[in-house]
Amino acid sequence: MTSAAATLQALREQKPLVHQITNYVVMNETANATLAIGALPVMAHAGEEVEEMARLASSLVLNIGTLSPHWVEAMILAGGTATARDIPIVLDPVGAGATQYRTATAHRLLGILDVTVLRGNAGEIATLVGAEAEVRGVESIGAGLEPAELARTAALRLGVIASVTGPVDHVSDGERVLSVANGHELLATVTGTGCMSSALTGCFLAAKPDAPLEAAAEALAAFGVAAEDAADGAAGPGTFHARLYDALYALDPAILDERTRIEEL
Amino acid sequence: MTSAAATLQALREQKPLVHQITNYVVMNETANATLAIGALPVMAHAGEEVEEMARLASSLVLNIGTLSPHWVEAMILAGGTATARDIPIVLDPVGAGATQYRTATAHRLLGILDVTVLRGNAGEIATLVGAEAEVRGVESIGAGLEPAELARTAALRLGVIASVTGPVDHVSDGERVLSVANGHELLATVTGTGCMSSALTGCFLAAKPDAPLEAAAEALAAFGVAAEDAADGAAGPGTFHARLYDALYALDPAILDERTRIEEL
Amino acid sequence: MTSAAATLQALREQKPLVHQITNYVVMNETANATLAIGALPVMAHAGEEVEEMARLASSLVLNIGTLSPHWVEAMILAGGTATARDIPIVLDPVGAGATQYRTATAHRLLGILDVTVLRGNAGEIATLVGAEAEVRGVESIGAGLEPAELARTAALRLGVIASVTGPVDHVSDGERVLSVANGHELLATVTGTGCMSSALTGCFLAAKPDAPLEAAAEALAAFGVAAEDAADGAAGPGTFHARLYDALYALDPAILDERTRIEEL
Repeated sequence: MTSAAATLQALREQKPLVHQITNYVVMNETANATLAIGALPVMAHAGEEVEEMARLASSLVLNIGTLSPHWVEAMILAGGTATARDIPIVLDPVGAGATQYRTATAHRLLGILDVTVLRGNAGEIATLVGAEAEVRGVESIGAGLEPAELARTAALRLGVIASVTGPVDHVSDGERVLSVANGHELLATVTGTGCMSSALTGCFLAAKPDAPLEAAAEALAAFGVAAEDAADGAAGPGTFHARLYDALYALDPAILDERTRIEEL
Repeated sequence: MTSAAATLQALREQKPLVHQITNYVVMNETANATLAIGALPVMAHAGEEVEEMARLASSLVLNIGTLSPHWVEAMILAGGTATARDIPIVLDPVGAGATQYRTATAHRLLGILDVTVLRGNAGEIATLVGAEAEVRGVESIGAGLEPAELARTAALRLGVIASVTGPVDHVSDGERVLSVANGHELLATVTGTGCMSSALTGCFLAAKPDAPLEAAAEALAAFGVAAEDAADGAAGPGTFHARLYDALYALDPAILDERTRIEEL
Repeated sequence: MTSAAATLQALREQKPLVHQITNYVVMNETANATLAIGALPVMAHAGEEVEEMARLASSLVLNIGTLSPHWVEAMILAGGTATARDIPIVLDPVGAGATQYRTATAHRLLGILDVTVLRGNAGEIATLVGAEAEVRGVESIGAGLEPAELARTAALRLGVIASVTGPVDHVSDGERVLSVANGHELLATVTGTGCMSSALTGCFLAAKPDAPLEAAAEALAAFGVAAEDAADGAAGPGTFHARLYDALYALDPAILDERTRIEEL
């Protein structure tokens, strides 16, 4: 059963350590989102320590937003440890489809590692299943499949929970598809909100590792509710951004499930 | 003719992709400023992808704020692609004059690449034209030439549009000099506002590539107007910083030209 | 004698350059805290320039939060210059105790360089003196010694001023112990506030190099007072974070000493 409130409560009690190997642009932002929701972030990317750090973590988040060869090797090392120990892995294929290096690296990580959840926008995910897609920089311009079908197809072909975010999010394990209709358009005006949703997916997976489909949808719903709260009273992207951490921190399990708009299609 | 409003409107319609190879300190900030003004930022620095990414972009912003050899090579690769394809390049020579490595790297980039706009503070630009200058870290302490003369001299000697920012900004193509008297002193209390002005210069160049002198001045004027708006009601550097993105996002072309203080000297 | 107000006033008059080689997560934050308090930050990590930059600085802050071999080498180069020239060094051993690489690197830096102040949480500092400790990611879970004793022991064994932060901070030179009871619990909800306290320690050391015990305590007290001001009216971690820079900027030497809670134990 899906209850973002119950998972959030478990997360706040456990304070799981979430190891993130992510891009330079959003490191501060994903760390702060992780802290605000109630988990502990740690950023570590040196080959000398990533395996040891991953062993200590309850989930691992990999994000290729500003990738380079050393960082990819670190992702493979940390991801190998996580795979061997059944630690859930979230992969955020930022910009897959924009350059060959990003597309190839996302495929390489999917091939080597046991990725639990692949969280991306429609253009990125469509690229990775070989469907028609347009990605401009790190922005999705269009995808050939409609999003529920895209999520289901990606899950089946890539052997992951596919989490396709957009105006409405779609999460699928290849059989079931959950849609999440929370969120706010100001999210698109702040860089790294997609990356934050991947980090929060890691937090929820850590608290609910046995039901990753639900955990992934709940993470997006909780983030979306926080965005709705943050937008209320924000004067634009900057104040919205600051208020987003306030709202994540203030999320109240007692009323969260009334506000999440998760539906099984 | 100079109209920041018209360029802003074109920019928002085109949503140009602005490829940025910049420093670790301000990546999030320049990405958010780019998004807030209405363009699409992308950060990519790996040798494996910078040429491909630069080809997709409408302008390229290079910033040496936390340079190291791999990053300089990436700038040269991306800049070579941009030069070959007439994609406008902005160079921000952060800290030129503070260390030999920064000064030499700025000269190297100016020598190899077809830099469209060189945007820096007086100390940095004076260093690069061989005038008397004092740079402390990344801060300009003084320059031997008065700023309009400095901008004109830099433009002539370095073959660029020189954009010298300070309490009043001066932009020159070597013949004409435009001054821009917008802005607010709180800008100096937040790190990376100079880098943001370079990123926004890239946005405006993308929307007005045929008139780079005007585009560079308009970018500074629009940023200055946003800073004036952000300062109104800010309690200090932190709230000013958040409000700066709100203000960039809210810039209204209908009244922008009444507020910009661009003058031809 | 201890007067955070007098040191703050001196700092604002001198505007010392504080060279920081720090982690990717907090670079923007420590730079902004440094600017807000009244000093000039500069980030530089390339082997090609760190010695030259360190020579120009009034203090050097080293932080291993996202370390890798090249960065460690840069810290050793810059730190060697600082040691040779009696420029005060702050070392922040982020995550020492979490992985062997972090612990070993912190010991290596302590062994080679003349570290003036070692600023960390209880778990990190306890790890470095070989006491019982638990560090999870970059979070201190527990330490075998009570904090005043830990600070004194660390100072004696490691030959530094030990600055152990927590709900109450303890700073010791091995003989005297100063406690600092300023601060606010919201500090723990924002990533990098520990790193900011290290950066501010660098600022205060630059202004009061001859009394590093007092300077280290005063920096924590001033930061704690600013946190108290920022919390007043904050709605959560995000608005607190923005207001923290406002509060640092607004710190008033005329009333600061009435509010600092520094005691000699």
